[in-house]
Amino acid sequence: MPRSIITLTTDFGLADHFVGAVKGVILNIVPEAEIVDISHGVPAYDILEGALTLAAAYSYFPAGTVHMVVVDPGVGTARRPIIATTERHVFVAPDNGVLSFIYSREPRLRVHHITTQHYFLQPVSQTFHARDVFAPVAAHLVKAVPIETFGDPISDFVRLPMLHPVAVNDHTLRGEVLKVDGFGNLITNLAPQHAPALFQPQPAPFKIVVGQREVRALRTSYGSAPENEIFAIIGSFGYLEIAANRASAAQLTGARRGAPVELTFGTAAAA
Amino acid sequence: MPRSIITLTTDFGLADHFVGAVKGVILNIVPEAEIVDISHGVPAYDILEGALTLAAAYSYFPAGTVHMVVVDPGVGTARRPIIATTERHVFVAPDNGVLSFIYSREPRLRVHHITTQHYFLQPVSQTFHARDVFAPVAAHLVKAVPIETFGDPISDFVRLPMLHPVAVNDHTLRGEVLKVDGFGNLITNLAPQHAPALFQPQPAPFKIVVGQREVRALRTSYGSAPENEIFAIIGSFGYLEIAANRASAAQLTGARRGAPVELTFGTAAAA
Amino acid sequence: MPRSIITLTTDFGLADHFVGAVKGVILNIVPEAEIVDISHGVPAYDILEGALTLAAAYSYFPAGTVHMVVVDPGVGTARRPIIATTERHVFVAPDNGVLSFIYSREPRLRVHHITTQHYFLQPVSQTFHARDVFAPVAAHLVKAVPIETFGDPISDFVRLPMLHPVAVNDHTLRGEVLKVDGFGNLITNLAPQHAPALFQPQPAPFKIVVGQREVRALRTSYGSAPENEIFAIIGSFGYLEIAANRASAAQLTGARRGAPVELTFGTAAAA
Repeated sequence: MPRSIITLTTDFGLADHFVGAVKGVILNIVPEAEIVDISHGVPAYDILEGALTLAAAYSYFPAGTVHMVVVDPGVGTARRPIIATTERHVFVAPDNGVLSFIYSREPRLRVHHITTQHYFLQPVSQTFHARDVFAPVAAHLVKAVPIETFGDPISDFVRLPMLHPVAVNDHTLRGEVLKVDGFGNLITNLAPQHAPALFQPQPAPFKIVVGQREVRALRTSYGSAPENEIFAIIGSFGYLEIAANRASAAQLTGARRGAPVELTFGTAAAA
Repeated sequence: MPRSIITLTTDFGLADHFVGAVKGVILNIVPEAEIVDISHGVPAYDILEGALTLAAAYSYFPAGTVHMVVVDPGVGTARRPIIATTERHVFVAPDNGVLSFIYSREPRLRVHHITTQHYFLQPVSQTFHARDVFAPVAAHLVKAVPIETFGDPISDFVRLPMLHPVAVNDHTLRGEVLKVDGFGNLITNLAPQHAPALFQPQPAPFKIVVGQREVRALRTSYGSAPENEIFAIIGSFGYLEIAANRASAAQLTGARRGAPVELTFGTAAAA
Repeated sequence: MPRSIITLTTDFGLADHFVGAVKGVILNIVPEAEIVDISHGVPAYDILEGALTLAAAYSYFPAGTVHMVVVDPGVGTARRPIIATTERHVFVAPDNGVLSFIYSREPRLRVHHITTQHYFLQPVSQTFHARDVFAPVAAHLVKAVPIETFGDPISDFVRLPMLHPVAVNDHTLRGEVLKVDGFGNLITNLAPQHAPALFQPQPAPFKIVVGQREVRALRTSYGSAPENEIFAIIGSFGYLEIAANRASAAQLTGARRGAPVELTFGTAAAA
């Protein structure tokens, strides 16, 4: 299993020195590493959005990729640094739930608590563990240091509560907006398995209420919708998204992250 | 012709998972590829600005570079995915005009319609062809898969209407602002060949009206202008730019993209 | 000393073609170079902030790294392009003070004025020396072209005036906010050596006045502070920072870059 690619997912932004310092530390240990940014634009301290961003990108990388994920409001406190290993990938992150989607999707999972300080950058600061702890550990992982060397296995790692939609009644599901992407698309937590009637060749009549708008169209591409229509579509996260053609559904509906999304089927949808 | 560099120019922004997923797909096919971001900050759906950004950067890359350009409001519709080949470079993009400057500048040009689905990521989504179509094609291109393998040559590819300045009368040209860059410089569509009198050793008297301001100075560097002066300069796009020393000409003039730029010569300029 | 990594620190932003063109020029000369972005988000023309960003990242990179730093309001004027060499690194930049922290930290320093135009991209523009001068020089430096080849040594290079805190009286120091980072932390110019009493095991009572707020707590991690508390902490720059737990100290205090930071010790702190 060759391991030379390290991806980075953080809430550091790109204006400061943070990302540069992390890359310097990695390259000082493994000059031949290929460092790939997944995103440094996770909103500050936003563990759920970091988890979503990682979940939508990690699986496309080659086997052996090391994913370093640092959205870490608890830096310097007792929260643990961990390594998670799946069949194809290795993840280095704080134990705060940012790997939750990895835990729920990956069948073969092992998690280790990083305790061996031997690989840390000394002295370890209390404010920048991405540089002093996570980056050197990720670099040594691509150098094939065995995972057991870093600490003991654990099973009580932190999982975010999963935000599943709930049935309000026989024909109504209530979900929510998990994320607004850069195009203004509203990514909901409604997946095809929650509403199979919506994804049949002849879908049942439906209505989705989100923000100030009702949505009654289901499209298969953004560009096939008439101008100014707000429609539903299965997006690249695998979830139902509320979108518009060359426009921001977030602006048009007024809905933000966390906003309720109510899906109603059948005759009730006509109301 | 060695081909191992892939550049990316998109309107995806850097906050979401889009760029990360695309890079993962490429590296999964060609782990040794060197992926270089030209820009992911093209305004959403803005084909002209994507075309301009690419045009100002591509020619500096080594022979054999594959440029992947995805500003793609028509994703999932009938618009075609294409490969354009020039003497030194290969371009992968939707057929929506985003390669227009390549077409007008490059003498040896061949364009192919990508139809062979063999190389696509399956199942192909209707919303994210950068990941499912363009990235795997770009990756296989750097692996030297022959271009004919991907589909047939075409000649009816889409060109953006070129925004040339027009002569209002004998001594007045009307152009427009093509783009405002990150420093607030106004990049116009006026080039030296449109107004040779402006670029002689002893330039003719002139006046440029843009937004709320008149410009009468021509400078050769930003830093040589007095504070608060708005001046004209030939910028790195090769076009006339309206600029200011350590200040934003966009703010000072109130002009935005698309704003008219009127250049008057001779005695009429004194009016 | 292997030299194949080039870092970039600029005020170009990521929306335009600037960074892409620079990378193309470098890769055209050294296709195997590894180009690493430290930051392109330095505020436009802000030499001090560029200097700070570089200072907080460069030392983590491997020996032999070439750091290209372009915050260059004087592009096209008489300001000199220079190469600075230290024990481990090489720096290429305009001579405007952007390397000031390198000069003050690195004991073995040599600076050369770049005059040999042989390596420049011809014709050299007056507006984009990052592309035409600094990038080709950086690329040839990683190709191990001897530094003497580029020009003569100089000793009158430009240093920014260092913003040291001043003693207002026996128990009061006045510093200032050097920078606000992306999390809203206020990085001050107060370092442990300026106020050793603050960093003893039993720190003396103190008060820090910044913006509209008084700060009386010193923390060792962000996450250990109670919600809504504004506290002082030694940050990853090595300076005293004013911060808050999962909140922006800049917003809470109303202080911006350049704001005074007044540190008072002892009984006067109770006032």
